[in-house]
Amino acid sequence: MITSIINVIVITMNSENEVFPDGFIQFKNDKITLIGDRKDYVKPAECEEIDGKRGILMPGMINLHSHLGMIPFRGLQDDCVDRLRKFLLPMEKAEMSPELVYASTKYALSEMLLGGITTVMDMYYFEKETARAAQDMSIRAFLGETIIDEGACDFENPYESLEYAEEFIQQYQNHPLITPCIAPHSTTTCSEDVLCKAHELSRKYSVPLTMHISEMDYEIQYFMEKYQMSPIAYMNHLGIVDDRLVAAHCIYMNDGDFAIMKGKNASVAHCIGSNTKAAKGIAPVKDMIEHGITVGLGTDGPASGNTLDIITQFKLFADFHKNINRDRSLFPASSIVAMGTINGAKALHIDEYIGSLEAGKQADIVLLETESVNMFPIYDPYSTLVYSANSSNVSMVFVAGKCVVKDKKLKEHNLKDLREELMNQMMQRENNLFQEHLL
Amino acid sequence: MITSIINVIVITMNSENEVFPDGFIQFKNDKITLIGDRKDYVKPAECEEIDGKRGILMPGMINLHSHLGMIPFRGLQDDCVDRLRKFLLPMEKAEMSPELVYASTKYALSEMLLGGITTVMDMYYFEKETARAAQDMSIRAFLGETIIDEGACDFENPYESLEYAEEFIQQYQNHPLITPCIAPHSTTTCSEDVLCKAHELSRKYSVPLTMHISEMDYEIQYFMEKYQMSPIAYMNHLGIVDDRLVAAHCIYMNDGDFAIMKGKNASVAHCIGSNTKAAKGIAPVKDMIEHGITVGLGTDGPASGNTLDIITQFKLFADFHKNINRDRSLFPASSIVAMGTINGAKALHIDEYIGSLEAGKQADIVLLETESVNMFPIYDPYSTLVYSANSSNVSMVFVAGKCVVKDKKLKEHNLKDLREELMNQMMQRENNLFQEHLL
Ligand SMILES: [Zn+2]
Ligand SMILES: [Zn+2]
Repeated sequence: MITSIINVIVITMNSENEVFPDGFIQFKNDKITLIGDRKDYVKPAECEEIDGKRGILMPGMINLHSHLGMIPFRGLQDDCVDRLRKFLLPMEKAEMSPELVYASTKYALSEMLLGGITTVMDMYYFEKETARAAQDMSIRAFLGETIIDEGACDFENPYESLEYAEEFIQQYQNHPLITPCIAPHSTTTCSEDVLCKAHELSRKYSVPLTMHISEMDYEIQYFMEKYQMSPIAYMNHLGIVDDRLVAAHCIYMNDGDFAIMKGKNASVAHCIGSNTKAAKGIAPVKDMIEHGITVGLGTDGPASGNTLDIITQFKLFADFHKNINRDRSLFPASSIVAMGTINGAKALHIDEYIGSLEAGKQADIVLLETESVNMFPIYDPYSTLVYSANSSNVSMVFVAGKCVVKDKKLKEHNLKDLREELMNQMMQRENNLFQEHLL
Repeated sequence: MITSIINVIVITMNSENEVFPDGFIQFKNDKITLIGDRKDYVKPAECEEIDGKRGILMPGMINLHSHLGMIPFRGLQDDCVDRLRKFLLPMEKAEMSPELVYASTKYALSEMLLGGITTVMDMYYFEKETARAAQDMSIRAFLGETIIDEGACDFENPYESLEYAEEFIQQYQNHPLITPCIAPHSTTTCSEDVLCKAHELSRKYSVPLTMHISEMDYEIQYFMEKYQMSPIAYMNHLGIVDDRLVAAHCIYMNDGDFAIMKGKNASVAHCIGSNTKAAKGIAPVKDMIEHGITVGLGTDGPASGNTLDIITQFKLFADFHKNINRDRSLFPASSIVAMGTINGAKALHIDEYIGSLEAGKQADIVLLETESVNMFPIYDPYSTLVYSANSSNVSMVFVAGKCVVKDKKLKEHNLKDLREELMNQMMQRENNLFQEHLL
């Protein structure tokens, strides 16, 4: 059975940045079969034909950094300086459970799908639950069990986490939509031995390694004082920087860091919303790109970035990077949309399969309606996406050819039920910490 | 007839920043009669009772700076360095007509109402058309005819504009929802004589004067070189800075400027989205507030800021000002919501009537639903508004007690018709310049 979407403005994000102002797409099962201008469209014999009503059709967006289990912490003490140590970590350790991770992940993934994200990279705890939820929600997911020295809600001991992580990798090695990863927490929260063992797993199974790097001012100071090196230089010294690395944040970077990241073909998950809300600074993305580093976009977890869609990051990216570089023409809208699509795919080294709308690629497809008040007029669909759109404009989403969002609603799930399940889990915690803070 | 909205989280924005986690509001005709906790609610005999379904109820938002007639330019050449001189000004002069201003304004006001804005300050051309549209849309509006030396789409000569502006002021002097203003374009685009004559109108009729000040780097340079003064110092020297002044932008400010603005009780319309997208810089709002200056928020026109809601500005404000000051606790979410509500009312000196939900004040009321995926959980409704919400969460809006938005739709207008009317106007222009660029 072939599906056609016609009567749409198509943003392909192919290497020529081709746009079909009056275009169509066709896909069969999980693969795109044809894409082009309306004049080349012929309705196949057996075909579900969808009228896109002059909406904008684009590749599914790619969210390179998140913590899906953290919905219960969204909006909690956002403006508190020491919220991580004072609220998030103790509450996480006291209250997080496999059931809560599962319920939170389903909810967070609903938000991502409804916002047009079709591929997400996650690091959190109880990652087998995350994977179970990702399968339920039919999203493409790169999932890494987080390893942290001080222990977390799932394991007291990082070596137990490493064992669980290896099992997890083995379990999901050949899954069509899930790619298992490994996720040491950060440069300062993991010992050298733990970092190296995590990297060893990444090498052994040839899976991505993702972690927080060069995010904190104290982190830079620590490595400078202890090793006279930047965190990235030190990670490189440990052998961890390679083409499987997706480094989240990279706010503090020097020329040596750029050279290392480029030389090793490692990628950056840039989280502008999370970084600036927490007053941490603006990662030097202009320099990264000039050095040839692949940069994709991430929302970070719901406790950090609050919104879980990439469209919000588009606008933030434009405003922050144009302003800091005092150049409104820097990062034209098309280049920002690229970061949330094809460049994200490049960061994960799956740009052969996803990230653009091209025949032969996976049918990860997003349709945004243009009937809402903010979506008029359209001179340039990239501008509309970056400067005008919001996640509520996403009307239809396909992952690997499967329709997961239709008419702005989850197709196979009921959001109200997912929220109720999550709320029930939050209310059943042992120490009532969520209850205590909820309005 | 009394209207009650019950079962809502009420953000009053009164002087104690009172929140009723399970509250209600009652209003009769245009005035709020009662507000409080559910336990104090008694259903009046004749009463329309609305179930707010645990939504967030807040004062109508106030947009201190816009150019409502400019919807036709939204998204046009956003990333072009010289777009103002290359595209906007020539197209405006060639194509703008009274009918187009009228159609654009109705459309822009639809977007504002749908986004929860109940009061807007505008400066544009053919301002009588703007006023006609504002009346049609039932919004509270402060409208100023723009005066510019080089002439514009309505008048070749600024003195003709001044005449029109005076007529306009006389015409709307006693309107319940419309306050006429005067709007000299900026410090560098109006001669001293024109600025002083505009100010004279403001004084004579006791109406607000709004203009662009300290927005451009070349503007600062010009005044420094010519007068060894900042633009604000020079405007003050001309007698223009007084308590009727709403100064848009104020990106470049020095200590003398803060003292002048505070001393004269003049206000600032801060447009963070527009300023940063155009790479102009971040106005020093922290300093302004420390100096006691009243600061409200503006979207700027749809060509500059693209989105016309204040909720988008909340998030941008938080991220930019926390980040530039390297302090996540600076500007807690409640203070940002204040800027978009009560402080906007103070800037217009009508905080006795609007800007907060209090008995006796005008019933300018916004309800946001909390059923959408991004609106959960709620620990602090201010955080939800600033970090999670977007304009699509606005479900119901009242201006002066009249319901203008219900179930996320305009109550008395059809958006599709308004768009069609606007598109028709754009397509009928003499020189086909919009047509030429439209996708
Ligand atoms: Zn993170
Ligand atoms: Zn302006």
